[in-house]
Amino acid sequence: MDNRPIGVFDSGLGGLTAVREMLRILPDEQIVFFGDTGRVPYGNRSQKIIAHYSRQDAEFLMSKNVKAIVIACGTASSVAGALLEKELPVPLTGVLEPTARAAAAATKNGRIGVIATEATIRSGSFQQALHSISPKLQVFSKSCPLFVPIVESGFMLEHPDITKEVAETYLAPLREADVDTVILGCTHYPILKRIIGEVVGEQVRLIDSGRETAAYCRTLLEQNDLLAPAGPGDCSFYVSDRIDDFSKVAGIFLREDVHSSVQLVDIDKFEGAIS
Amino acid sequence: MDNRPIGVFDSGLGGLTAVREMLRILPDEQIVFFGDTGRVPYGNRSQKIIAHYSRQDAEFLMSKNVKAIVIACGTASSVAGALLEKELPVPLTGVLEPTARAAAAATKNGRIGVIATEATIRSGSFQQALHSISPKLQVFSKSCPLFVPIVESGFMLEHPDITKEVAETYLAPLREADVDTVILGCTHYPILKRIIGEVVGEQVRLIDSGRETAAYCRTLLEQNDLLAPAGPGDCSFYVSDRIDDFSKVAGIFLREDVHSSVQLVDIDKFEGAIS
Repeated sequence: MDNRPIGVFDSGLGGLTAVREMLRILPDEQIVFFGDTGRVPYGNRSQKIIAHYSRQDAEFLMSKNVKAIVIACGTASSVAGALLEKELPVPLTGVLEPTARAAAAATKNGRIGVIATEATIRSGSFQQALHSISPKLQVFSKSCPLFVPIVESGFMLEHPDITKEVAETYLAPLREADVDTVILGCTHYPILKRIIGEVVGEQVRLIDSGRETAAYCRTLLEQNDLLAPAGPGDCSFYVSDRIDDFSKVAGIFLREDVHSSVQLVDIDKFEGAIS
Repeated sequence: MDNRPIGVFDSGLGGLTAVREMLRILPDEQIVFFGDTGRVPYGNRSQKIIAHYSRQDAEFLMSKNVKAIVIACGTASSVAGALLEKELPVPLTGVLEPTARAAAAATKNGRIGVIATEATIRSGSFQQALHSISPKLQVFSKSCPLFVPIVESGFMLEHPDITKEVAETYLAPLREADVDTVILGCTHYPILKRIIGEVVGEQVRLIDSGRETAAYCRTLLEQNDLLAPAGPGDCSFYVSDRIDDFSKVAGIFLREDVHSSVQLVDIDKFEGAIS
């Protein structure tokens, strides 16, 4: 048993889709969420910058005395997950392994699609994670650079029809490849799950990286005897910019009014040198 | 006469549309361009962060011994232009005033549309600049948050049809308002000029903020006796991330192969505290 909070970070607010699942699966836990809204998006940046930012994000969470860290961001998990796991003194999980395991278990024809940001796709990290489970899996990847801004600006709410057309152009190669499972490799994408599902067809299983990561976080806490004692859980929210808009945007991801207050963090103050 | 270079900065690479015009109008000048590709986009950030970043960008250019600075970014001009003009020891222009003057001169019915990023529209800066020229002008503003990622990811090249649909949704209120002039208030938008023109109709004048700012830069240099002596001009490129992709993306904005080399800048090293 351990009373300390779990730290969760994301490049922006997409990681709140993982927090939503954590609040459901781990109702007794305190969660400290940091969204790097001052530097979002990570997905089109270089590996070096993403690693630097991710380390600063983790350092901030460590300053909150967390007992474990969840990287609720496909890009940061892909680029900096292994690095941070080695460096940090607490258990850590990114979205990669839990999501890859769920996809490998779900596929029947061995053909898996991966959609994610440009940096995640370029890193080949999901493909590697899937191949380390089974080298026979065939993986088809596609970056979808407009999905994050579509979600963050709320465009999909006002214009689901055009959003669907964008999804159709991005997903066409996966449909042609006859995949039966698609990994939503970015924690923003569950917000587009209905539209993506309509485009790929209901016979295709969508693997939600936020949900799988939340489930694995529970396992990780159990294995390390770090679960919190029974009691009301809670979530504190920290962001690096745009505190005013937080409640509105967070509501999209959490699917409820956000009552907790949000605090601003000067993330540049945290060390993050990665060689 | 002055041999020193002109400094130009932008949040990303959209400002290269202004550089393209400067190379045409000011062929004798040395230009130092800095694109803050490590922190793009500015348009959805808070005023405080945008002001901080803009000051760092200007400090970097000052370290290159520039004789004048052009803010080739609608967002940075709107949020930090007045501030930097006061602080810097060299002449400076943003895109606001030159663009507002051109629009005020172009309109016949006094109804002007402004499209730009969220931060620019929220700042009300174009409206203020237009009203300081003539309080009678009627200004209709619309933020277009997907335009920058559409341009930066090259989506409009592969999918002009969907890009046009996005433009139609954003521009519908301006068409209904019967504007006869539209300010492209973000230096990325000239890349979408043909599509935007098709949507608003050929009777509507599009004012290109990059072009107007380049023209005013010439006037500013003349007024301050800072024009370079005759001789071959040149442009040096600096960015804060993704040096590998620079040539490809820069080609979209400059409409030519970029032969000059590009150098990486650690922009966080430059002072930029704005209270």
